[in-house]
Amino acid sequence: MTTPSQPPNDGPLVLTTYDWVPEPPRGLVRDLRVRWALEEAGLPYRVATTPFHERGPDHLLHQPFNQVPWLTDGERTIFETGAILLHLGARCEVLLPTDPARRSEAIQWMFAAQNSMETALLPMLILEFAQDPGTAPGAMAIADYRRKRLQRLEAVLAAREWLAGGFSAADILMADALRLVSGLESDPEHPACAAYVARATSRPAFRKAHADQLAHFAAADAAGLDRPN
Amino acid sequence: MTTPSQPPNDGPLVLTTYDWVPEPPRGLVRDLRVRWALEEAGLPYRVATTPFHERGPDHLLHQPFNQVPWLTDGERTIFETGAILLHLGARCEVLLPTDPARRSEAIQWMFAAQNSMETALLPMLILEFAQDPGTAPGAMAIADYRRKRLQRLEAVLAAREWLAGGFSAADILMADALRLVSGLESDPEHPACAAYVARATSRPAFRKAHADQLAHFAAADAAGLDRPN
Repeated sequence: MTTPSQPPNDGPLVLTTYDWVPEPPRGLVRDLRVRWALEEAGLPYRVATTPFHERGPDHLLHQPFNQVPWLTDGERTIFETGAILLHLGARCEVLLPTDPARRSEAIQWMFAAQNSMETALLPMLILEFAQDPGTAPGAMAIADYRRKRLQRLEAVLAAREWLAGGFSAADILMADALRLVSGLESDPEHPACAAYVARATSRPAFRKAHADQLAHFAAADAAGLDRPN
Repeated sequence: MTTPSQPPNDGPLVLTTYDWVPEPPRGLVRDLRVRWALEEAGLPYRVATTPFHERGPDHLLHQPFNQVPWLTDGERTIFETGAILLHLGARCEVLLPTDPARRSEAIQWMFAAQNSMETALLPMLILEFAQDPGTAPGAMAIADYRRKRLQRLEAVLAAREWLAGGFSAADILMADALRLVSGLESDPEHPACAAYVARATSRPAFRKAHADQLAHFAAADAAGLDRPN
C-alpha cells in the first residue's frame, strides 16, 4: 500500500499522477499532456503521486472523476488537461500566443481537440479495448464507461446546486450534455443529475433558447427548406 | 435551394446555425448552447443561417468540421461551443465569474463537461441512434463517426503545419488525442494526420515528457507498487 505524496511546499507547480498503472496505458496516461506542456514552456515543476489502487476521498477532492492528472499552482489545484493547459498558456506564449486573434484561434482548436475529435476517437478505442467490436461486449463497455462517469457526477451534483458556485457557462455545457442521456429524468441511479438538468432547463434563458430553436426550424419547414434541389 | 445569409453588418453578435434540420435533432442542435448563453447574458444578437443540405467551402472556413454553430463577433468568428462560451464569458459575469478562483473552477467544469462527460455520453447516443446496440451497426456507426471527423481534420492538416499558426497548446491536445487512433501512422486515408502526429511527437518536449512518464511507472514497478495490499 502506498501513501499519497505530501502536499507540495517546495515549488509552485506540482503535477500529480498515479503512483503506478498497468502496462497498457503507459505512455498514454494524461499527465503526459501536462508534462509536454510544461516542457514546451520550460516551466519548473515536480511530479507527485496519488495511489492507483486505493483512491480515497482526498483524490476526489482534487479530481471529481477519480482520474489524473491535476496540477497544483500555489494555492490552486486544477483538473482537466484542457483547463490546465489554458492556465499554463496564460503564463507562456509558447502554449498560447498573446496576439488576441491567434490566441482565440488556439483556444478554439483546444476545444475542438477535446470535443470535436476526442469524442469521436475515444469510443472506437473503447470498442477496441473490449476486444470484440461489433458485439455485445463493445456496447457494454461503452455503457459501462457512461455509467461510471455519471456516478461520479452524481456525487458532485448531490452536494451542490451548480458546478462552480453560482450558475455559470459550465452548467450550460454540462446540462446540455446530460440531455443526451435518454431516460435520465426517470433514472433511479442518478437522481441528482436528473434534478440538475431539470433545474437548468427550467431557467428562463434555456426555455427561450429552446423555444427559439424549435421556432427557427419550424419556420424553415413552413418556408419549404426541407426540400433540397 | 437556400442561399447563405449575408455576412453580418448590423450588429456585433451573430449566431450562425443551419437553415433547416430534420426532426430528430431539433431542440438539440448546438446553437442551443450559444442561444442559452446569450440569453443568460442578456447580450443582443441575431441568428444567421447556413444551408444544411449543401455545405460549401464557405461553411468549412467558419467551421472546419462542417457543423454548427459559429459566432461572429465583429471581425472574429469563433467555432466550438466551449470556445464561444469562454469568449462570451469574458464579457459577462453571469457566464464566468470575475473572481479568479471561481473563474478557474468554472473553466475546469467547462472542460469537464466537454471532455470528461460528453466523451462518455455521446458514444451511447450513437449506439442508440444506430438502433441496434451491441450489434455490428452500432460499432459501424462509431467507426463512421470517427472516420468523418478524421477526414475533416485531414483536410485542415493537409494545409497547415500546426493548428493555430505556430505550435500551441492546441497541438498538444490534438496530437495526443490522435495517438488514440491505432494504426494511424500507416493509414493511407489520413496521411496528413499521421504526419502531424509524427511532427508533434518528434518535438523534444514530447520526447522528454513521454520518456519521463515511462520512467516514472517503471520506477514504480521496481518499487513493487504494482502489488496492492
